[in-house]
This record gives sequence, structure tokens and C-alpha cells, in this order.
Amino acid sequence: MPSAASSQLLDADFPTRLREVAGMVETRLDALLPKPNGHQSVIFEAARYAALGGGKRLRPFLVVETARMLGGSLDEALSVGCALECLHVYSLVHDDLPCMDDDDLRRGKPTVHRAYGDAIAVLAGDALLTRSFGILGEVDLPADVKVKLVTELAMSGGMSGMIGGQVVDITVAEGERDEALITELQAMKTGALIDYAVRAGGYVAGASETELAALSAYARDMGLAFQIQDDILDVTGDAETVGKAVGKDADLGKATFVSILGLEGAQHRAKELGERAKNRLAPWDKAAQTLRDTVDFVLERKH
Amino acid sequence: MPSAASSQLLDADFPTRLREVAGMVETRLDALLPKPNGHQSVIFEAARYAALGGGKRLRPFLVVETARMLGGSLDEALSVGCALECLHVYSLVHDDLPCMDDDDLRRGKPTVHRAYGDAIAVLAGDALLTRSFGILGEVDLPADVKVKLVTELAMSGGMSGMIGGQVVDITVAEGERDEALITELQAMKTGALIDYAVRAGGYVAGASETELAALSAYARDMGLAFQIQDDILDVTGDAETVGKAVGKDADLGKATFVSILGLEGAQHRAKELGERAKNRLAPWDKAAQTLRDTVDFVLERKH
Repeated sequence: MPSAASSQLLDADFPTRLREVAGMVETRLDALLPKPNGHQSVIFEAARYAALGGGKRLRPFLVVETARMLGGSLDEALSVGCALECLHVYSLVHDDLPCMDDDDLRRGKPTVHRAYGDAIAVLAGDALLTRSFGILGEVDLPADVKVKLVTELAMSGGMSGMIGGQVVDITVAEGERDEALITELQAMKTGALIDYAVRAGGYVAGASETELAALSAYARDMGLAFQIQDDILDVTGDAETVGKAVGKDADLGKATFVSILGLEGAQHRAKELGERAKNRLAPWDKAAQTLRDTVDFVLERKH
Repeated sequence: MPSAASSQLLDADFPTRLREVAGMVETRLDALLPKPNGHQSVIFEAARYAALGGGKRLRPFLVVETARMLGGSLDEALSVGCALECLHVYSLVHDDLPCMDDDDLRRGKPTVHRAYGDAIAVLAGDALLTRSFGILGEVDLPADVKVKLVTELAMSGGMSGMIGGQVVDITVAEGERDEALITELQAMKTGALIDYAVRAGGYVAGASETELAALSAYARDMGLAFQIQDDILDVTGDAETVGKAVGKDADLGKATFVSILGLEGAQHRAKELGERAKNRLAPWDKAAQTLRDTVDFVLERKH
């Protein structure tokens, strides 16, 4: 098990690796999303507009780095990561719709419905979600592995996973949210896909059930730490660095980990979860350094 | 090959069989869609509201009857049919949204967005689409068959299939629509899933490539005949029997098979396609009677 001190500082190579994988994801997504053609070419354009050109690509990064740690095929891990990214992007496209969050900007450019209209945005989201499963069906992996990837993606992205979390976020009044509720909400809304990312990397590499359980535990701790850090940044960050309006949660009287645990309590909790996440990787010793660095990256980020 | 005369009249048992399968689909869907639970229970309710309680269930019927003809497992065919039905239902839920067709009623009850609001309707559609693939991942079939079912569903329901057809329908002006365009539109918008239905039944039963090709040819001819009959009913039907407003297409100056071919031309074309569809089933002789009856059902229906 690595000492806490050794993993306190972010590996200098980490940002480079993150950037490299993001570049590979961009290229692979470009290849996996059909080029505009036919009378319906606008839907190909809209899907590409939504999926290409940016983002940290944290989910595919986790798929790739988990597969790398376990000695799996990076090429197939990259495609699986892109399938997951398509699902993540579809959720953003639908989330931005006027009847949902009604956002005009995403990654510094107009949201899909602002650029292409609401109907095409609904359909582009549908198309990206559909394509996620198509990509998983096409990757060069054994059929039983692909079936696991499909089945678990449908669970993680479905009514008991990501969509369930979105629904709780939309429907449960702020006053009714305690720590247990916002923890459950986060576990579904963002945690389920982070868990899927590392498990998918595990499946690509033929991980054992024991290994998959350790990876899931790592992902769950890190996912929650990620959300707590988000809440902390809303209080401590300045808008310019964070890249979006801050103090919004408090202004809205929103129940967050900071409003419930206090700023210091939240910081302590995030740190504790981060350490626990890293300790879950003990079985892989030095090979897990990038996944450990990912935890530090998540906690040290200023945006 | 059956004589044209022998298949002219609808088998008296056909309506019973159609009704029986619809009942089985209803029961199976009820089992495959999770019961409302947790803080997000409204999304389970909305998904069940959309998927349960009605419809001819033509697509699952085709899956089941094709599998039956080929000696495949009816139980697995039924689940695969339900996966396809979930995908079909999601497309209706999103189609009915205010930013799409803005419909208030579906199968005689308020559309999902009228009953649950636009945000939940978007998410319920997303959830049903996601569940389609989840169901395919879970059925008791060999992994390689499930991968084919997943991959082809993603194609048939995606940008080059159903979604592509919807986009053409939304974006191509009426004046630019000739017979070739509306044929292509139909082949994508409704034809792709009918094709998928019979191929899926074939996969469940382990059909050969030659058999799958014949099934696809049958489905393509029948799908087009179905659409032409729709256009004919809009001109010849009375609103009460058809169950919706008629004469709408002509009032809107819509390019339809009737406006392009004339009423008699369209009737002739539908009949011709129907005969051709039935002839595609020659390899299966008497065992194909239900699939032949389905063609007559499609052409003789008054609504």
C-alpha cells in the first residue's frame, strides 16, 4: 500500500497523460460517429457537434487507464470509452434542453438546441445514446464481454442509475434533502457512470470479480469526493477560475455537502474519501499510480 | 409458393393470434419494466404509463411469429420483441413532445408529457431506449446472438434508420419530396424497425444468412405497403373508423403516395407490394401462413 505522503502530490506526467488520452478519444470519436450524409445529414452534424471538440474526457480516461493497469487492450478500451462518452454527451444534450436546465452554453459554445433547434437536439441525444450501444456491439472483444458491457451500461445509464439521479434532482424539494439523500442522488447521477468506467476497463482486461469489486469501491469513493469538491468550489472558487457562476448553490438555498457538513467538514470528508479511494488500489501497488493521480486531480482541481 | 387466391382472405384465426401475442407482450413488458421504487419512482411510473396498456404490438408480433415459423424459442422471442417495443414506445414519447409533433393524446390517453411534464417525458423516453438494450443483454440466448441483436437494433433505431427517417420528415420541405424521397423516408422511419423485427425473430431461431435475406425482403415490401395503406386511409377512411383526423395530408399539401401516384395507382402499388412480400415467404410454404396473414391484415385494416 502506498504511503499517504507518496500520493499527496500529483505526478508531473499526469496532465500530459490526461491530455494524450483526450486527444485519442477525440480522434476515435471522429471515426466512430458517421460523417454527415444523406437527406438526414443534419443529425450527423448535430451529433458530431455535441460529441467532438472538448471536455476532459474523464470517463474514457478511466476506462483506458484501468485497462492499461490490468494489461488489457488499449485500442478496445478506447472504443469502449468512446461508447461511454457518447452516453455521457447525450445526457448533457438532453439536460441542456429548455424543458430541463435550459442552458445556452456548453464548453464555451452554443448548446445543441441553441445551434440546431429543440427537435434536432432531442433526436441528436437519442442518436448518441443509441450509438453508444452500437459501438459496444462492434468492438473487437469476446461476445460475452460485450454483453456484460451492454447490460451494465444499460443499468448504469438507466432508471436506477444516471437517469434515476436526474429525476431525483428534478423532483425532490431542497428542504427534503439530507446527507443521505444527496449522497444517494450523487451515487446515481454521476457515480454510476464513473463506476461503469472502471468496471468497463476491467472487463476489457478480463478482470476477476474480486478485482472488479475493488475497482467499484475505488470509483464510488472517488465519485463522491468529486461531487463534494464541486460543492466546495461553488463556495471557495472565483467565477473566472471555475469557469461558471459560483455561489449559485447558496443563493438558491440548495442542499449541498457544504451546507450540510460545513466548509471544513466537507473538505475533511473529501480528503478522507480520496484517501480511501486510493487505498482501494492497494492490490495493484505501483501499477495503479495513474488511477491514484486521478483522485488527486479530482480533489486538487480548481474548476 | 401459395396461390394468390389462397392468401387473399385473412385467416379467421389471425385476429385471435394477434390479440394473444399482444396479451403476452403486455404481461412480459410488465415484468421487464421495474416497479416504481426509490426517490425516483416517478420515472418508473412514466415509463410504465408509456409502454403498458395498448397498441397492436405489431413489431413484437413479427418477432414472435418469425421465431415460431423457424422453430425458435417463443419465450426468448417475446423478450426480444419487448425490447423492440420499448424502443418503438420511446420514439413515440419523444415524437409527441411539444418541440416535435406536440400531440396531446396517444392511444386514447394523455401523452406522457401531458401527464408528467416535458422533462420527465424526455427522461422516460431516454429510459425506455436504454432499457431496450438492457433487455437484449439479459435474454437467455447465446452471447453472439445477443451481440447481433444489439448491434442491429442500434443500426435500425439510429441515424441511418428510424432517427434518420424522423429527421428527413422534419427537415425536407414538401415541395422537394418525390416518390424516391418518400420511399427512402418510409424505409428509414418505419421500415427499419419492421425489418429488424423479422430479422430478430430469425436470430432467435438461428436463421441462416439466406433466410435472413428473404425475411428482410418480406419486411421491406410489407413496410412500404403499410405506409401506402396509411396514405390511402387518410383519403378514403372516415375519421371515426380510422380513429384520427383524415384528409389531413391533402389539407397540408403533403406529398404522399396518393398525391404522387393517384388513389388507384397507390392501391395498385400496395397490392403489388403485398403480393411480393408474401412471395418472399415461399421457402417456408405453409409454416409462413401467419406472416402472410400479417400482410393481408396490414392491407385490409381500416385504421
